[in-house]
Amino acid sequence: MLLAEKAFTGEKNNGFDVLYHNMKHGQISSKELTDFIRERSTIEEAYARSMTKLAKSAGNFSQLGTFAPVWDVFKTSTEKLASCHMELVRKLQELIKEVQKYVDEQAKAHKKTKEEVASTLEAVQNIQTISQALQKSKEIYNAKTVEQERLRKEGATQRDVDKAGVKAKKATETYKSYVEKYATAKSDFEQKMAETAQKFQDIEESHILHMKEIIQAYAQSVDETHIQIGEVHNEFVRNIENTSVESLIQKLAESKGTGKERPGNCKTSCFVWSVVSVGYSM
Amino acid sequence: MLLAEKAFTGEKNNGFDVLYHNMKHGQISSKELTDFIRERSTIEEAYARSMTKLAKSAGNFSQLGTFAPVWDVFKTSTEKLASCHMELVRKLQELIKEVQKYVDEQAKAHKKTKEEVASTLEAVQNIQTISQALQKSKEIYNAKTVEQERLRKEGATQRDVDKAGVKAKKATETYKSYVEKYATAKSDFEQKMAETAQKFQDIEESHILHMKEIIQAYAQSVDETHIQIGEVHNEFVRNIENTSVESLIQKLAESKGTGKERPGNCKTSCFVWSVVSVGYSM
Repeated sequence: MLLAEKAFTGEKNNGFDVLYHNMKHGQISSKELTDFIRERSTIEEAYARSMTKLAKSAGNFSQLGTFAPVWDVFKTSTEKLASCHMELVRKLQELIKEVQKYVDEQAKAHKKTKEEVASTLEAVQNIQTISQALQKSKEIYNAKTVEQERLRKEGATQRDVDKAGVKAKKATETYKSYVEKYATAKSDFEQKMAETAQKFQDIEESHILHMKEIIQAYAQSVDETHIQIGEVHNEFVRNIENTSVESLIQKLAESKGTGKERPGNCKTSCFVWSVVSVGYSM
Repeated sequence: MLLAEKAFTGEKNNGFDVLYHNMKHGQISSKELTDFIRERSTIEEAYARSMTKLAKSAGNFSQLGTFAPVWDVFKTSTEKLASCHMELVRKLQELIKEVQKYVDEQAKAHKKTKEEVASTLEAVQNIQTISQALQKSKEIYNAKTVEQERLRKEGATQRDVDKAGVKAKKATETYKSYVEKYATAKSDFEQKMAETAQKFQDIEESHILHMKEIIQAYAQSVDETHIQIGEVHNEFVRNIENTSVESLIQKLAESKGTGKERPGNCKTSCFVWSVVSVGYSM
């Protein structure tokens, strides 16, 4: 917004500045994109570490009781969740290296461009100088013409009217010469500025395309992680569903029971039988 | 494993202890599940807060240059990502309240069960005492019978053989009475233990079912969040795709340009024209 205002208020012919600074902002934006990805990576890493800690907690939960085997499902799933996020961290770190490379290349390219557009900057400064001189010579020409006319109307001596006429003629010639100089400078400026503006536009287009490529790589990594997390979650749900009440009680009975044959006429479950049979057998 | 060992090594008739402690482990497991969900909630909250911070960073990135409008897409998407995780935190907090309620109910139910199974514990202690006495009376009976036989074979006096016979007979009667007492105690123990074991099994089944319900609610919240995150991500990708190089350059040209009509024969883009036209217009 600041540059837009500068482009319209007071200072003339600063379209070059607008374009040049816009190009330089491209360096800021690619650095900021690096910052963004780096920060996201840091967040994912912290999340992954917390998940690893949570998996350890689940692993340290009581190994006693019917529910105990379920903690293995939690532990494994949480470990896998941590791995998904660590994998994203790895991908983002790779991406940051690529963006860093781009940041360096961009700085070099901008330096080169600055040299290439030096003559355009000269043309800009030239037309600024000439347009000021043109404006001034126009004012002098107007003043001298008005002065000669005034003397003539007021009936001044022919000598004074002629003297004013010489001055007016000289001012007219100066003004005319600046109009010609301005036309030449304008033509030079227009040509160079059109080329340079095209160059700046090409740089902008290529910058935005590169930034979009980086963002797409970033989005793809995030998307892959999202799919992996979905798989881990579905596996967790499946494993919980497959852990039936019967299987858990069976597991407990096996770990606490005698392994003796359950009597055919036993109406209670294997669990009850196994514990009772441990109980009173001598 | 410890209880399983206890069930087999040395101490007899402690199936009751195994079952009773297994029930008590149910209280540990429900508390641990609360801990797990609480820790997950804490992790999600930290992640959400970091994402909010990242969204703010994106919002504070440079508002200058062609790329600037893209930060809005990052900011909005990151804010929405933070919201998804905060929504999960809210759901997990609700769930923790429910689990807490279950933990309290479970403690009360276990206290009630302890009173209900008191007579079974007595039967257990009874059969333990009698089985020890039975074992001892069997040993005495064996020793006395062997002693009488030895005296007879070694040609001891009839008086000594008869005396040993009285002792053997008395030992036989004691042994017989313990066999009967043991049979009664065994029958009482078996009946009470079968009922109690069934009660403990019902408690285990209901506990595991309740735990599975909690886990399903947990998994559903996590799944809902996963779907929401996927939508936020897809929206981000769509918004980036829709942000074309042309539209960004157009936006810049509009903010920096004069709004003047672009000449029909102008071969350069609106961007170049607008800046050039700002540049040299007087």
